[in-house]
Amino acid sequence: MTQVFNFSSGPAVLPADVLKQAQQELCDWQGLGTSVMEISHRSKEFIHVAEEAEKDFRDLLNIPSNYKVLFCHGGGRGQFAGIPLNLLGDKTTADYVDAGYWAASAVKEAKKYCVPHVIDAKITVDGLRAVKPMSEWQLSNNAAYLHYCPNETIDGIAIDETPAFASDVVVTADFSSTILSREIDVSRFGVIYAGAQKNIGPAGLTLVIVREDLLGKAHAACPSILDYSVLNENDSMFNTPPTFAWYLSGLVFKWLKKQGGVAAMEKVNQQKSELLYGVIDRSDFYRNDVAKSNRSRMNIPFQLADSALDKLFLEESFAAGLHALKGHRVVGGMRASIYNAMPLAGVQALTDFMVDFERRHG
Amino acid sequence: MTQVFNFSSGPAVLPADVLKQAQQELCDWQGLGTSVMEISHRSKEFIHVAEEAEKDFRDLLNIPSNYKVLFCHGGGRGQFAGIPLNLLGDKTTADYVDAGYWAASAVKEAKKYCVPHVIDAKITVDGLRAVKPMSEWQLSNNAAYLHYCPNETIDGIAIDETPAFASDVVVTADFSSTILSREIDVSRFGVIYAGAQKNIGPAGLTLVIVREDLLGKAHAACPSILDYSVLNENDSMFNTPPTFAWYLSGLVFKWLKKQGGVAAMEKVNQQKSELLYGVIDRSDFYRNDVAKSNRSRMNIPFQLADSALDKLFLEESFAAGLHALKGHRVVGGMRASIYNAMPLAGVQALTDFMVDFERRHG
Repeated sequence: MTQVFNFSSGPAVLPADVLKQAQQELCDWQGLGTSVMEISHRSKEFIHVAEEAEKDFRDLLNIPSNYKVLFCHGGGRGQFAGIPLNLLGDKTTADYVDAGYWAASAVKEAKKYCVPHVIDAKITVDGLRAVKPMSEWQLSNNAAYLHYCPNETIDGIAIDETPAFASDVVVTADFSSTILSREIDVSRFGVIYAGAQKNIGPAGLTLVIVREDLLGKAHAACPSILDYSVLNENDSMFNTPPTFAWYLSGLVFKWLKKQGGVAAMEKVNQQKSELLYGVIDRSDFYRNDVAKSNRSRMNIPFQLADSALDKLFLEESFAAGLHALKGHRVVGGMRASIYNAMPLAGVQALTDFMVDFERRHG
Repeated sequence: MTQVFNFSSGPAVLPADVLKQAQQELCDWQGLGTSVMEISHRSKEFIHVAEEAEKDFRDLLNIPSNYKVLFCHGGGRGQFAGIPLNLLGDKTTADYVDAGYWAASAVKEAKKYCVPHVIDAKITVDGLRAVKPMSEWQLSNNAAYLHYCPNETIDGIAIDETPAFASDVVVTADFSSTILSREIDVSRFGVIYAGAQKNIGPAGLTLVIVREDLLGKAHAACPSILDYSVLNENDSMFNTPPTFAWYLSGLVFKWLKKQGGVAAMEKVNQQKSELLYGVIDRSDFYRNDVAKSNRSRMNIPFQLADSALDKLFLEESFAAGLHALKGHRVVGGMRASIYNAMPLAGVQALTDFMVDFERRHG
C-alpha cells in the first residue's frame, strides 16, 4: 500500500506513533479492562492523565506559573465569544487586528459584545500579501484587550513577531494553527487559545492559557462553560470534559517531548516549509503570493499558473498518497497544511510529486 | 482475565462491538490510510458519516421531520445556557421543574438570563423520594418554556410520564442520561438535548433535537456555537465539530438498530433494572429510597444498611471486575449506572456479587 501523507488543515494528521498507541490500548487501557473513554473524568486514573497532559503542555511552552491552563469545550470559535465575555469588564471596546479570514471571524463574533476597533493590517508589499508590522498597529486607548491571529490557516499568513506592547495591553491571540510549532514567549500574552484539531489532538477540545490576574471578570451573561474562572476553579471539570481528546492530546505532548520539544519542532517546521516554498518559488508553474516575512510555516496555499490543471493535480496527488491538498473553498487552488505531525518525508514526497508534475505538464 | 463490567455514570461503558470496530479502523479508516479523526469535517467521507449518524438517530427516536438534529460542542451544561439563550425571546421567565441535582443546576445557569419560576417537584411518598405528577406542576402563564430533567443521574430519580401540556407550552428536557433507553414521543417536546457521554458516545458531543418553529429567536448575546439557528444553517459545522465523537456515536446508533432499536433496548433496560432493584429490595441489607414510580432504570443508587461496609464492598466488587460503583460524592453509598451498553450479564454479575456479599456480611 502507498504510504499516505495527509495535508488536511484540520482535523489534521496526528503522529503515527500516537495513533498506534491509542489503537493498542483502545479497548483495555492500563489493564483496567475498559477504554480510557469509558471511565469517569473524576476517577483517579483520568485525573492522572489530565494532570500529566497539563504538566507536559506547560513544559513544552514554558508557561509561567502565573498562567492557568484550561481544557475547554467549544473550539476556537467558542473563544471568539469567550474572549470578550471574559475580558471586557466594564469596557466597551477592544482592538482587533484583521489580517485574514479567522481574525475577521473573531471580529464578527466580538460585535455581539462590544464595538471592536478593527485595525486593518492587510497590506501589499511588491504585489505580495503581507501584514503591517506590530509597531504600526494603532491601538486605541480605551480597549479592554488586543486580539490577533498569528497564523491564518486559510490565507497562509503568519505574524511571527513577538508582541512588545506597553505592559498594560492585554494581548490575546488565536494560536489554533500554530501552537507548539515554534517557541513563543507566553509572558507577552494575556490569553492564548487554540482549538486542538491542528497541532494538538482530535477536534472538540480547546486549550486556553490565561494570566491569572485576568480571571474573575466574566460578564454576568457568560455561559459557565466559557467562564475562565469557573473552569479554573473546577480544574476544567465544571462539566464533563472531552476526555478522549484530552487523553490523546496528552499522548501528543509526550511525543513532542520525545522529539526534542518545541525548539526541535521549530527547526523541522522551518526545514519543511523552506523545502515546499522552495519548489513553489523556483519557477512560474506554482505560485504563492504571500510576502516572505509573513509566510506561514503551517499552512501553505499555492496556485498552479494554469488553474485548468488543478483537477488533474488533485487526482494525481491523491493517487500518489498525498491527501487533502485541495485549497479552502474561499481561496481555491491548493493548500498543504504541514503541522508538527507531518514528517519531513511527507513534504519531501509532496515536493517530489510537484517537481514531477511540473516536468510533465509545465 | 476477569470480565470487567463498568458501571460508571459517565463517561460510561460503550458497546464492546463498537469499541472493537473503532480499534480495528483507528489508524486506517475505510482504506484511506488515515484515521477518521484526521480527516476534514468537510470531506465527503466525513459528511457521509455525519449524515448517516443523523439519519440513524432520527430513525431510532422516530424524530418528526419538523425537528432539526444538531451535533454540538459544550455538553449538557452548555445547553443549560443554550436553552434560555435560544428560547426566551422577549420573555423574562421560564418554568423550571426541580426534581434533583441536574434540574437544580439548570436553574442556576438560567438565572443568568431570566427569572426562572421554579416548581419544586420533590415530594415524599411513604417515606420514599418521589416526584409530583406532571398534572400537579403549576406552570406560570408567562413562561417562555418549561424545563425538566427526566432522569436524575445522581439522585436516581426518573420522570417517565409523557408530557401532555397545552400545545403552546414549549417543553424542554435534559435527556442526557436516558436518551435512547426507552421510547419517547418527540412531538411532545420543543427541545430535547443530551450530552453524549452516557447513552450515546464519548464525552464532548451534545445532541439537540429542536422543533424548527423555535429557531431564529436566539438572544443577541448568544455565542454562535450555542445558537441553534447558526448550527442548523451550517449543518452543525459552523465550527469544527468533535468529529471522532460524532463518528463513534454513529457506530453506537448502528449497533442500537442491530439490537432491535429503542423498543428492544427498553425491554432489556426494564429487565436489568428489575433484576437489580429486586436484589436491593429483598432484604434490609441494601436500600434504595426512591418510590417505585420514580425509580430510574439508568442510574440506581443504593446504600448498605451498615455504611461501615462500603469500603469493603467497593474493594471486593472492583476485584470481581465490577467497576465504578462508588456513589456520587453528594450522595455517598453505591451507584450502578446501567445504560444501554451495559449487558444483562453485567447486571447479573453485579447482583450475584451483591447476594454473595450479603450472605457473607449480612
